[in-house]
Amino acid sequence: MSRFADRFVAAVRAKGNPVCIGLDPRFDLLPTRLRQLALRTHGASARAVASAFLDFNRAIIDAVADLVPVCKPQIAFYEEYGTEGVRAFDETVRYAHSRGLVVISDAKRGDIGSTAEAYARAHLANDVGDVVGRGFDADAVTVNPYLGRDSIAPFLELCRQQQRGIFLLVRTSNPGARDLQDLQSDGRPIYEHVAAMVRDLGGAAGPSGFNDVGAVVGATYPEQARRLREIMPDTLFLVPGYGAQGASAADAVAGFRDDGLGAVVSSSRGVIFAFREEPYASRFEEAKFAEAARAAVLDMAAALQGALAARS
Amino acid sequence: MSRFADRFVAAVRAKGNPVCIGLDPRFDLLPTRLRQLALRTHGASARAVASAFLDFNRAIIDAVADLVPVCKPQIAFYEEYGTEGVRAFDETVRYAHSRGLVVISDAKRGDIGSTAEAYARAHLANDVGDVVGRGFDADAVTVNPYLGRDSIAPFLELCRQQQRGIFLLVRTSNPGARDLQDLQSDGRPIYEHVAAMVRDLGGAAGPSGFNDVGAVVGATYPEQARRLREIMPDTLFLVPGYGAQGASAADAVAGFRDDGLGAVVSSSRGVIFAFREEPYASRFEEAKFAEAARAAVLDMAAALQGALAARS
Repeated sequence: MSRFADRFVAAVRAKGNPVCIGLDPRFDLLPTRLRQLALRTHGASARAVASAFLDFNRAIIDAVADLVPVCKPQIAFYEEYGTEGVRAFDETVRYAHSRGLVVISDAKRGDIGSTAEAYARAHLANDVGDVVGRGFDADAVTVNPYLGRDSIAPFLELCRQQQRGIFLLVRTSNPGARDLQDLQSDGRPIYEHVAAMVRDLGGAAGPSGFNDVGAVVGATYPEQARRLREIMPDTLFLVPGYGAQGASAADAVAGFRDDGLGAVVSSSRGVIFAFREEPYASRFEEAKFAEAARAAVLDMAAALQGALAARS
Repeated sequence: MSRFADRFVAAVRAKGNPVCIGLDPRFDLLPTRLRQLALRTHGASARAVASAFLDFNRAIIDAVADLVPVCKPQIAFYEEYGTEGVRAFDETVRYAHSRGLVVISDAKRGDIGSTAEAYARAHLANDVGDVVGRGFDADAVTVNPYLGRDSIAPFLELCRQQQRGIFLLVRTSNPGARDLQDLQSDGRPIYEHVAAMVRDLGGAAGPSGFNDVGAVVGATYPEQARRLREIMPDTLFLVPGYGAQGASAADAVAGFRDDGLGAVVSSSRGVIFAFREEPYASRFEEAKFAEAARAAVLDMAAALQGALAARS
């Protein structure tokens, strides 16, 4: 297995677009038929929800696997349902891998010492040579930088051993990002200090031109994304905030490298729940939710490709 | 059920000490007999680890429940073993509740919008009136502040509805805390900005004199803890770093209020793995690990009570 960044870039090249789909199911938004089937089979229980999530995710993955290089299940939506939910998360990661997708565990973990080691093993190593099976087998995990460099080191160690990656939160796409991330220190915002840390931790680029320490850079402030690309030329960007959070395709590609590489743009609701909203709701009945997701991915890929072409 | 802060303070008063035990099991450090039993019963599997964790935790909780007001399972050590591990976490929370302990889920979660809502429900509400069962049923959860106020709001909403609490990371006890938390902005370190946010979010104190938005304040820098107490007079402190991380009892109580209330000091390895280290290893054989933990709690409680008395 090659380095994470190389697999990531190869997947984006192979699919010809930088779309990442967020697999963030919510029970009340699932197609009625899936919900009813799960409730009939398992009763009104967390198991029913987990079962419906997995059915839903598999159908979506099947519908888009030939188009999409990367997916990003957000573990919160599974963790909400406790043990059963976490099992659905685990199986979603496995299924996405079986269909050839690069998988980012969107967990935003962060802790120190042996706790950080445990999180790294939890998300990035199904088997690290222990006598017993391990946690989830994602290619990369999102990590919160608030605890500093020594909290990130255990993730980096496992990334080296297991050819995995991390994406550190740098500048998020929500209004509250202003409260801490935008505070000025030494003439620059905190998030630029974090960006410098990401660049330093990432070190040398691999054959793909990128290293394995990525950055989460929200799509809602394109001028910041351009500045962050200057600070982190060899860093993979994970760009949330497209669509539902208001960013346009032009905004979303602001942090891409001039060669059109180096980032994926993530959309969750706009893809997986496309069947609930126009322009897809009138074209696809609810039972065709996976086809609606495919149509939304095609539209999103075209929009991003167009924005990248317009930029150059 | 009363407000979280009131339950928390009542538990500390009732037990007469501010000890919080960290339930952070590690398979390779468990007593040999527990490990062998689990491996014989379940084979070399995550289920064996989860089973051993639960046996271990129950024995520890039974041995200290009459002494200790608060416990803090660190979910990373369970998440490391995937679905089975998370089940052991869930059952540990339930068991600690059944023995009357206040339970803090040490998860350091943080995300935005509906994701933050999902995390809040995952950790703080076993049942919020939905048709289906929910996640873990802790009294409080630790939260990372990097994403700002709007990432914390969903936790606060659930805290109000369900009488729960949160502890926001303010200043952690690791060396890397310097990288971001200590950066200066407007003449004060970032962690003091976070402290001001915690104070504002906490609002009015309840009957106990404290509110439900607590702070994680590492024990390793007592002068910082005193300053943070000035900024956050009505805030509950969760103080990690005692013992294994090098802080003394005098350091650990620096952030307590003058009345000796307002904080708990957490120890994990120093209590649960006391049987492995002196002065307990020579007094307790391995099979007596729970009695060793009890002895360590008694010593820790006495040290903290002494440090509080010496301070006044």
